[in-house]
Amino acid sequence: MEKLTIIKVGGKIVEESETLNGLLSEFTRIQGKKLLVHGGGRSATRIASQLGIESRMVNGRRITDAETLKVVTMVYGGLVNKNIVAGLQARGLNALGMTGADMNILLSVKRPVKEIDYGYVGDVKAADGAALADLISRGVIPVLAPLTHDGKGNMLNTNADTIAGEAAKALARYFDVTLVFCFEKKGVLRDENDDDSVIPEINESSFKQYVADGIIQGGMIPKLENSFDAIRSGVKEVIITQASDIANGGGTRIV
Amino acid sequence: MEKLTIIKVGGKIVEESETLNGLLSEFTRIQGKKLLVHGGGRSATRIASQLGIESRMVNGRRITDAETLKVVTMVYGGLVNKNIVAGLQARGLNALGMTGADMNILLSVKRPVKEIDYGYVGDVKAADGAALADLISRGVIPVLAPLTHDGKGNMLNTNADTIAGEAAKALARYFDVTLVFCFEKKGVLRDENDDDSVIPEINESSFKQYVADGIIQGGMIPKLENSFDAIRSGVKEVIITQASDIANGGGTRIV
Repeated sequence: MEKLTIIKVGGKIVEESETLNGLLSEFTRIQGKKLLVHGGGRSATRIASQLGIESRMVNGRRITDAETLKVVTMVYGGLVNKNIVAGLQARGLNALGMTGADMNILLSVKRPVKEIDYGYVGDVKAADGAALADLISRGVIPVLAPLTHDGKGNMLNTNADTIAGEAAKALARYFDVTLVFCFEKKGVLRDENDDDSVIPEINESSFKQYVADGIIQGGMIPKLENSFDAIRSGVKEVIITQASDIANGGGTRIV
Repeated sequence: MEKLTIIKVGGKIVEESETLNGLLSEFTRIQGKKLLVHGGGRSATRIASQLGIESRMVNGRRITDAETLKVVTMVYGGLVNKNIVAGLQARGLNALGMTGADMNILLSVKRPVKEIDYGYVGDVKAADGAALADLISRGVIPVLAPLTHDGKGNMLNTNADTIAGEAAKALARYFDVTLVFCFEKKGVLRDENDDDSVIPEINESSFKQYVADGIIQGGMIPKLENSFDAIRSGVKEVIITQASDIANGGGTRIV
């Protein structure tokens, strides 16, 4: 099977023109088929604030009421997504910006209210890998915003890591998928105060040991659990690295 | 050739959920291949105002400075476009929201400054009919926002009537195109105070006579000139009608 590289970048990188330009140039250098997933939370928070809407976060997730949904739909699906698409087109890449509603590629269910009512937040229940694979095989580079829909006419806010993971799993039937999570550090670090202490490779058994030893902790644990989930679903490899290294193959390899 | 219906709707219809739902249901009833082009000016003006950005219009066109460009990119490409796409998906139509940057379907040049500096406004210089036709022939329903790009990484604000006309002309090589401009009246009226005085058909010679007689005036003149331009470029017919009639075939037919 042909190789497909899926890059997930957070909001911080894509929201300032200098770091965005650096990222887009790195992304352009990646050989072969590719797909980009982006965040945009900082812009959403800033524009919500300018509109007098308070941003409430719980466990790192945005509580998405009706007004906040409008903001993230505008910012993720419009402002951030289209600037990336225009930037890639300027570099000769045939980018197509999409949310989960477009061609129904990511259908979600609104998250059930348990202890916390996250509001208009979607948990993905179906990803159309065939539709995405068909676009990709014809030279299109999908650029996915962190939005899905419920099939009943409502957009839903969905975490960008989740979008990347679901797209990777759905595409694993059609391509040898490498999923790259861009991160502010060079990779998973053995010592958080030493940027050069990147762990080159982690498998499930070494992961358990690193967690038991307290070397891997906090927000990195769910990120790695998601990575192992992707690999169990057929994704060939997951890489955690920094944006400036995505075309070089550095970082931590999850196998 | 197969028939293709291109519907252009203004901002007023798509920006309130009741009229939007009515429009989407009418659009769903249209048989065969179809494409939707939408505006969004009222929402852009409202959100710009909430963000403290003044909207300046000259000859009905928005002066688009850098901050206003961000607003229209958010509102047209994100908020309005994705709500339409989600609404069509809920009705079982395989909608794909696009700007001119997506798959490079509409490439523009920033309007040269003459008497008026319109700012980041694009005049279309190339439309990729082949890319759109290929999507349409595979069952996709493109939903076009009134935005293009300059091929250098910048989005540009572009009039929705222009987007519809350029898409229609570019697709005329692949389909028998009917271009429908939705309007607040039932069609072109012989007497503006009589909603039932719709002129059923206008050709170039009767148009000149209606203008000479003062029956057709104001903003309807450029709309009709654009319609004749589309027909000279191979579009089969142009219809001016109200949104509630798009599936019925009423209104004024330009031939």
